[in-house]
Amino acid sequence: MPLQDYMRLVSVDDHAIEPADVWTSRLPAKYAEAGPHVEERDFEQGVQLGRNAHGLHQVWMYEGEMFADIGLNAVAGKDPSEWDTEPARYEDMRPGCYDPVERVKDLDIDGVQAQLCFPSFPRFAGTRFLPAKDKDLALLCVQAWNDWMLDEWCGAAPDRFIPFAILPLWDAALAATEATRVIGKGAKAIGFPENTSPLGLPSFHTDHWDPVFAVVEEAGVPLCMHFGTSGVKPTVAPDAPTPVVISLMGSNSAAALSDLLFSPVFHNFPRLKVSLAEGGIGWIPYQLERIDYVWERHRYYSGIRTDVRPSDLFRRNVWGCFIDDVHGLRSRHEIGVDRITWESDYPHSDSAWPHSRKRAAEVLADVPDEEAHRSVELNACEMFNWRPWSE
Amino acid sequence: MPLQDYMRLVSVDDHAIEPADVWTSRLPAKYAEAGPHVEERDFEQGVQLGRNAHGLHQVWMYEGEMFADIGLNAVAGKDPSEWDTEPARYEDMRPGCYDPVERVKDLDIDGVQAQLCFPSFPRFAGTRFLPAKDKDLALLCVQAWNDWMLDEWCGAAPDRFIPFAILPLWDAALAATEATRVIGKGAKAIGFPENTSPLGLPSFHTDHWDPVFAVVEEAGVPLCMHFGTSGVKPTVAPDAPTPVVISLMGSNSAAALSDLLFSPVFHNFPRLKVSLAEGGIGWIPYQLERIDYVWERHRYYSGIRTDVRPSDLFRRNVWGCFIDDVHGLRSRHEIGVDRITWESDYPHSDSAWPHSRKRAAEVLADVPDEEAHRSVELNACEMFNWRPWSE
Repeated sequence: MPLQDYMRLVSVDDHAIEPADVWTSRLPAKYAEAGPHVEERDFEQGVQLGRNAHGLHQVWMYEGEMFADIGLNAVAGKDPSEWDTEPARYEDMRPGCYDPVERVKDLDIDGVQAQLCFPSFPRFAGTRFLPAKDKDLALLCVQAWNDWMLDEWCGAAPDRFIPFAILPLWDAALAATEATRVIGKGAKAIGFPENTSPLGLPSFHTDHWDPVFAVVEEAGVPLCMHFGTSGVKPTVAPDAPTPVVISLMGSNSAAALSDLLFSPVFHNFPRLKVSLAEGGIGWIPYQLERIDYVWERHRYYSGIRTDVRPSDLFRRNVWGCFIDDVHGLRSRHEIGVDRITWESDYPHSDSAWPHSRKRAAEVLADVPDEEAHRSVELNACEMFNWRPWSE
Repeated sequence: MPLQDYMRLVSVDDHAIEPADVWTSRLPAKYAEAGPHVEERDFEQGVQLGRNAHGLHQVWMYEGEMFADIGLNAVAGKDPSEWDTEPARYEDMRPGCYDPVERVKDLDIDGVQAQLCFPSFPRFAGTRFLPAKDKDLALLCVQAWNDWMLDEWCGAAPDRFIPFAILPLWDAALAATEATRVIGKGAKAIGFPENTSPLGLPSFHTDHWDPVFAVVEEAGVPLCMHFGTSGVKPTVAPDAPTPVVISLMGSNSAAALSDLLFSPVFHNFPRLKVSLAEGGIGWIPYQLERIDYVWERHRYYSGIRTDVRPSDLFRRNVWGCFIDDVHGLRSRHEIGVDRITWESDYPHSDSAWPHSRKRAAEVLADVPDEEAHRSVELNACEMFNWRPWSE
């Protein structure tokens, strides 16, 4: 009995597809054209992007630009042999992708108690709004998404959705102010890029983000760094098939971990929490051992802190998550059983939906009850400081 | 007794620093100026690069360009607290860096039987010569290095150095011809880039390299892919301290592995051998599991081979190596005990010299004799088809 009935599955990484009215119903009327809204486009006559099918598509329009990935990677409920083109319209997706009441039904089917939903159109850490021409509008867009997520999505089922928000990343002071605002509204998790440098922003090795770190540390709210949020993918051949880069995305989380552990961040903010979302956990024992090895040998000349072993920072400040990671669970004592959280990745291609609970039971088959309970529920609830049910 | 006296340490990854006469003594006289040769430069008055100290330096000159890294990362024998500037002159390095007779003495001190030495000035896979203006000269440079390595370096102690060669990578037919030539001279290993695309060359997903693969497959000679030979490093913040990227270089080997396993290479050349040099092994169980997971779900639309599980290809065609990888050795049965080789990385910063044998004994402490023997000696000898000693 590896996964007992009393253990609730709490997922730290899932995705909401925004319905068409997230921004149109919240932005001032003057932004009707510039703000994000959905239009119909005939792809027979127009641009075709990537794996989009021909036909009449629904696309996001924002500041005059078209974004054709309205349901990027929303494959929940489809057999892998049918994965070919991306959804072209809302009706190509399960309603659970964009409707929180329908999502709860899909959670029930999947045996999952609660989940954290990252944005889709804004990208997982809100970086869609970084290159915006009109930064006043961009700030309103960030706030509108946060209000929609906190009020409407999470409001639909407060014990099923972990309150999550994004930040206006182009201005650290503004980001700290928005963090304070959303935490006041109940946010228990905040999205943040795994690496800010490729986005043209100062790195973790500066004091640029200190205002944000101070707010979330004080509130005990983790920064959730989803892989890919730096906008950079692992370097592979340009003609490499899609699976190559998909299989390597965990390298981004390893890079974020090393970057953070060798940075001043956890020294200056000792209670700051970081959740490495979708990165997997099986690589962590090797990477921590390697980071410590390099720290041991290279710390004297490189200007890094020499007093605290990086793996000790990991065990205090960072959480990883697994979806189907037999080696990672076998290595759980090397990672730390309190560092492991679970994810379901609905509605993306990594998800086991509608068999998440069944699959979790399989991969946890050899794990003692207490450790399994920690991995699927208790660690996540402690990390988020969120557990809206008694026992 | 984890490491028995009868077990010989055979390292698959070390480095030779070329003495000043490798090319001057072998190239036609007309190339005296253009070919690689060593000059003296006063760095008080001239260019300073990276971690080079002031003073009179010895530098490589080639086709009018200066390369100031004559002893890049040659730290053998120095305490980590002294690692600061790079060697400026041959006399700043241990003679074992560039003299094969002295190297044998250092092997004896270290308790190591044999090793494979990658090039330094030509870079680990010979890519220094790729952008050469004069390709006739470049070919002669490749051949001169190979003749020096096979005749002079390995010739100095044929039972201590694994015969290794590099290829003229700008022309696959020429590369196949040179591979045939060096194999005829006794080469048992050939350097090859971990990823050819960033070098401006066709990828593993084309048939471009088939002439090379055919030659080395037929001869049973492994392609040794040292991390970093693509010329690409993991993406980190530009102001990240040096240890960040050092700790992440194994990601390059993971990328090479995924790229190869999803490519046609091992399907078309089922006996081709690949040695992932300096990549570590502790990440392999996670990465193989992840690659299989992605293959299982994404194989239908992505144009990859659907008949053979990628991890089965790994277990037939690829070897990893460890230097100080406790988690990797603990996970040896998930990797495959016949897939593991050992390395000492002399004279670079990862090396435990002069304590390599002592350290190997420590990390192998819990490994049964037969498996330890496989890891430090037998697997490497089988991979190279080279074992110039009886029993």
